[in-house]
Amino acid sequence: MPTARLLLSCPDRTGLVASVADFVWRVGGNITHADQHTDEQAGVFFQRVEFLVSDLTVGRGQLAQRFAPVAAEFGMEWRLSFSDETRRVAILVSRQGHCLYDLLARWRAGELPCDIAAVISNWPDHSAAAEHFEVPFHELPVTPETRDAQESRLADLLGRYRVDLVVLARYMQILGRRIIDPYRYRVINIHHSFLPAFAGGRPYAQAHARGVKLIGATAHYATEDLDEGPIIAQEVARVTHRDSVDDLARTGRDLETTVLARAVRAHLTDRILVYGRKTVVFD
Amino acid sequence: MPTARLLLSCPDRTGLVASVADFVWRVGGNITHADQHTDEQAGVFFQRVEFLVSDLTVGRGQLAQRFAPVAAEFGMEWRLSFSDETRRVAILVSRQGHCLYDLLARWRAGELPCDIAAVISNWPDHSAAAEHFEVPFHELPVTPETRDAQESRLADLLGRYRVDLVVLARYMQILGRRIIDPYRYRVINIHHSFLPAFAGGRPYAQAHARGVKLIGATAHYATEDLDEGPIIAQEVARVTHRDSVDDLARTGRDLETTVLARAVRAHLTDRILVYGRKTVVFD
Amino acid sequence: MPTARLLLSCPDRTGLVASVADFVWRVGGNITHADQHTDEQAGVFFQRVEFLVSDLTVGRGQLAQRFAPVAAEFGMEWRLSFSDETRRVAILVSRQGHCLYDLLARWRAGELPCDIAAVISNWPDHSAAAEHFEVPFHELPVTPETRDAQESRLADLLGRYRVDLVVLARYMQILGRRIIDPYRYRVINIHHSFLPAFAGGRPYAQAHARGVKLIGATAHYATEDLDEGPIIAQEVARVTHRDSVDDLARTGRDLETTVLARAVRAHLTDRILVYGRKTVVFD
Amino acid sequence: MPTARLLLSCPDRTGLVASVADFVWRVGGNITHADQHTDEQAGVFFQRVEFLVSDLTVGRGQLAQRFAPVAAEFGMEWRLSFSDETRRVAILVSRQGHCLYDLLARWRAGELPCDIAAVISNWPDHSAAAEHFEVPFHELPVTPETRDAQESRLADLLGRYRVDLVVLARYMQILGRRIIDPYRYRVINIHHSFLPAFAGGRPYAQAHARGVKLIGATAHYATEDLDEGPIIAQEVARVTHRDSVDDLARTGRDLETTVLARAVRAHLTDRILVYGRKTVVFD
Repeated sequence: MPTARLLLSCPDRTGLVASVADFVWRVGGNITHADQHTDEQAGVFFQRVEFLVSDLTVGRGQLAQRFAPVAAEFGMEWRLSFSDETRRVAILVSRQGHCLYDLLARWRAGELPCDIAAVISNWPDHSAAAEHFEVPFHELPVTPETRDAQESRLADLLGRYRVDLVVLARYMQILGRRIIDPYRYRVINIHHSFLPAFAGGRPYAQAHARGVKLIGATAHYATEDLDEGPIIAQEVARVTHRDSVDDLARTGRDLETTVLARAVRAHLTDRILVYGRKTVVFD
Repeated sequence: MPTARLLLSCPDRTGLVASVADFVWRVGGNITHADQHTDEQAGVFFQRVEFLVSDLTVGRGQLAQRFAPVAAEFGMEWRLSFSDETRRVAILVSRQGHCLYDLLARWRAGELPCDIAAVISNWPDHSAAAEHFEVPFHELPVTPETRDAQESRLADLLGRYRVDLVVLARYMQILGRRIIDPYRYRVINIHHSFLPAFAGGRPYAQAHARGVKLIGATAHYATEDLDEGPIIAQEVARVTHRDSVDDLARTGRDLETTVLARAVRAHLTDRILVYGRKTVVFD
Repeated sequence: MPTARLLLSCPDRTGLVASVADFVWRVGGNITHADQHTDEQAGVFFQRVEFLVSDLTVGRGQLAQRFAPVAAEFGMEWRLSFSDETRRVAILVSRQGHCLYDLLARWRAGELPCDIAAVISNWPDHSAAAEHFEVPFHELPVTPETRDAQESRLADLLGRYRVDLVVLARYMQILGRRIIDPYRYRVINIHHSFLPAFAGGRPYAQAHARGVKLIGATAHYATEDLDEGPIIAQEVARVTHRDSVDDLARTGRDLETTVLARAVRAHLTDRILVYGRKTVVFD
Repeated sequence: MPTARLLLSCPDRTGLVASVADFVWRVGGNITHADQHTDEQAGVFFQRVEFLVSDLTVGRGQLAQRFAPVAAEFGMEWRLSFSDETRRVAILVSRQGHCLYDLLARWRAGELPCDIAAVISNWPDHSAAAEHFEVPFHELPVTPETRDAQESRLADLLGRYRVDLVVLARYMQILGRRIIDPYRYRVINIHHSFLPAFAGGRPYAQAHARGVKLIGATAHYATEDLDEGPIIAQEVARVTHRDSVDDLARTGRDLETTVLARAVRAHLTDRILVYGRKTVVFD
């Protein structure tokens, strides 16, 4: 059954929860999930409220208008979405296809509530996979010289497909602000280390050289500061002195697919609020 | 700052969340934590609401009376407690002392908000430890013949110390209904397996014989059905063919202490609701 | 570089390790990996020795003959294989395709050193996936009445493809001894629970009903006793009261794919020795 | 039953394993555990061999002399120890006592095969705990001005107690080379982060500020480069946006105790070989 999802943050104050709950009750919503968090140091309140819209006493289109006075009273930043409004996703990938395959398989299995609008790559390798899953594939090759032009073509493609979310599924190119800015907190990247350890290139080689006993993967929103964006999900796996760099990479691929899928799913179900460099992920 | 904690469950219905939030607002409480869960199959709603009592417009003693009409309207089971009303805990232990030591050390470190009123054992081994932590120690030896009389003395002791929570920290005696019934869902046991696997005696030996690759520990409320009570917390650790039964026991001790402490802490902070054979543990 | 792998077990005795090492040295092998285990209760010794064959002073074909006297002296059960003799694998699957997809993707990525000779199913659903990975697909539909005939056709197919290993990748039919016996310890099954908990059907529903806080998956050799075969690998994931049976199934799919792939890889690299109901898995 | 433990490393070469195994056989040892590792990039071979000494045909004192020619032939670095030669351990601690308590409790439970010779602290807080476990306690207060003199007194104490291993159980002072050099790879520190993330001071505050979803602990050999020594063991735990810095510290304490105890146990059972900045930890 379709639901509305209200995500909000504002300065903490008495009466907040009551006011939001009262709003939902007055419009005929039935709350199926509510979660909140108060950052007591910063004095900021965060909430996610999900409610059934089947018995609304007002039209869907009026919900936002009805909520506006509540939001204004408390100085909220907020957004409202509906579980049956399907988000459009573009997956960007380079040569390593494990995250792409995993996302496509989960999508087909019904785990990811979205439309996968396109697969875009700077290499031709995964066109057959895209075709197998009946998703349009675009190759946008790039060299150091053509970087700017390629990004321009990429921006065009994302616009043409009306993309809501960009997933960097081991896309080994740095995105500039032409992409990052319009899609702020709508670009999810997977980094193959337990950030902030081993930021930058070749994290498995770095981890091997340092002799760590666990390796990790981190899904985060891409920002203009590489590997510094707000972290959404992380996972680790145990390794030993027996593991070569290749073994770390193999073990790591399992982490990468799992962590990226978890982050994409959290985004698509409107569970993530960003504040500062951090995220609140309601579960 | 002291808070009130309201734990409730009732048939799911529109307006529930709003009514509870409205109640808190009307008495001048400021909600610092609210979490809820709806079991959609069973149609049951669960909620935990914690709110500051520093600015209450009514006396603490009146809160329950004020809430009663709301509870009645929705057919709620509920309880109200205050974070500064310290619970009194008895720890029961047999010969293995690792859980006892761990709980006492956490208590001294301030992790467990309670008074440890007494340590009770059917063996004398841990009297010095209790003394070191300045907790009264009682030895209640037991033989198959004296089982009934010993349990009677145990019930007396728990009563005399006005105990709110009984923690079975590797207490290797089965408790009868004389204890279980008056302390329903107030007796926490640690079982040294990943229940329901390896219920009953000698779980590490059972696990070794079956050749499992993970061992576990389970904290649960003790009921009259041994090892069948509602599960509060579970944890596992990896083992290999190299591990003897003694190795499993050693690894398992770490799981037992961690899992038991987590369950006790969840109970003491009023995070657990029992329904049927299951628990809702708000985090 | 190609290696030979010697897997052996025998009664424990002084001089065993020296004799095996001496044998490898005499034939010109260079040991790259050696691992051993002694079950002290049972008095049984297990060893895996892997050595380079590039500088052998005897022909590969003579290795077994040269080792026979050593094996006889100590009463060893043993087998010898070579890393470049590719095993032939059949994957059996029913309707749920996540394990199949995962194995095919890992195989293509080079993680699984084998030939995937065929995909066999009692349903037609995954023929396109097999085709995409260029693996022959066979549909062998089955009803309660045709069970025996279908299994006979299955046995024929496995024989015709000269299959070395059968992987039950969520194949929801019970295999009879016509398959189990000739492929003893060469049929790997994935069970979607942390065995021995929740053996039998619908383990996620069982787990949900019991209210466990962790769910698991178990890869084991299939034997005539359903869900009782030697365990190869297990993994668990945390769940909460919020998770429905469907959520458990979704979380569980990730465990199933990971655990099954790990078990298949351990088998293909000759790391598993079975004894009694247990396995030694050298890593 | 007592065993000898031979730990060695040398350039990789054919015949190594055979020569060591032959040596053990010739002196009448029975190998109970052997493990090896080859770093193929570096071309270095590592081995740990443990063998029963009950049926030795030579005296214990002659073992090293007998092994010397083998070691010389292959250019080995090696050391030989006996399981019944109890190591003497000093635990250094500042104000936080959880690791100290944990080590003392494990030691009393028989998990740590050593003598705890002394507890040394720059604060008086834990003298009663040491007394309870009947271990000498020494307070060595320190100020920035007295740092050098205090370290000198510390060196004297370690010498007087003939200490084999120094465990920094949350000892918040940096040790100079006067301690580090003579106890090279015999000083184990616990750092309360997943190194190399959050090296330096206040790692839980750093982790909180960065918004990571996992926190960790790392046991490593202390070297003159702070937080850069070879890593022995690491562990992590999941955290969320709900966790304050204090919550991270509380969760982290469990990691710290577990990881430090694991590292100390690995050291005491001669399972660790250091090379470069890394360790081989045989299990």
